Amino acid sequence: MPYQRIVLAVDLTDESITVANKAAAMCKAFDGELTIIHVIESLNYAYGGDVPIDVSDIQEQLQDTATKHMQALVDQLEIPVKETIVTQGGIESEIHRTAEDLEADLIIVGSHGRHGLALLLGSTANGVLHGAPCDVLAVRVKSEH
Amino acid sequence: MPYQRIVLAVDLTDESITVANKAAAMCKAFDGELTIIHVIESLNYAYGGDVPIDVSDIQEQLQDTATKHMQALVDQLEIPVKETIVTQGGIESEIHRTAEDLEADLIIVGSHGRHGLALLLGSTANGVLHGAPCDVLAVRVKSEH
Repeated sequence: MPYQRIVLAVDLTDESITVANKAAAMCKAFDGELTIIHVIESLNYAYGGDVPIDVSDIQEQLQDTATKHMQALVDQLEIPVKETIVTQGGIESEIHRTAEDLEADLIIVGSHGRHGLALLLGSTANGVLHGAPCDVLAVRVKSEH
Repeated sequence: MPYQRIVLAVDLTDESITVANKAAAMCKAFDGELTIIHVIESLNYAYGGDVPIDVSDIQEQLQDTATKHMQALVDQLEIPVKETIVTQGGIESEIHRTAEDLEADLIIVGSHGRHGLALLLGSTANGVLHGAPCDVLAVRVKSEH
């Protein structure tokens, strides 16, 4: 069974359930464990540490909101989730680090067909694929653009 | 079952069997049908039609060699293959066209972690992902570079 430890990366938009359902199907098919991660791009990270105002309140609010959305997503899934992670940092680097830490064999992400992978602000089109320590499944979601 | 019609794109290097075995596992898990495609990048295509010598003999030899390698690959697989395609043209465009024609729900390709997807000469790093009509599974193979 090739996929035992699956990391699903979501941007917690409406499209995340589509991607999550595919992840659930993969877990069922291969009897794998699912970890879901959402990365809030740190403002400090995005702007190279040169942020002139204190953004800790904003980051905290983003964290709270994301945690609620994550729970709502988990509640919609038909399979148990081993772990959810809401963290801050660089999107691709956090996803890769988590996959390495968990010795994941598959990363699943949403992909907008024409634009490649799209997660959240700052993510480059194929950032998750580049440098991934394992296989990557890009699940096509409808592009709004 | 999300993946019923799977298109496996291979470059017919030694690494193809690794990717093909993952494809076979996916087909087994989802009871899907497997089509394997190898695209020989047409020299005319690669050089914009401006090839000063007659390359039809070379193309024919490439086609023969690829067909043999394809058969050898199929012989190593534990599952039946619905169809094999050895064709010439643009790599990404032929893969996408085939996926559309077959109404595929998944394209599987090999991926060199650091360099993204790598199929054969001329393929851009993430060309298969961009513009794919369906989900794409990038199977990590060892990078030689």
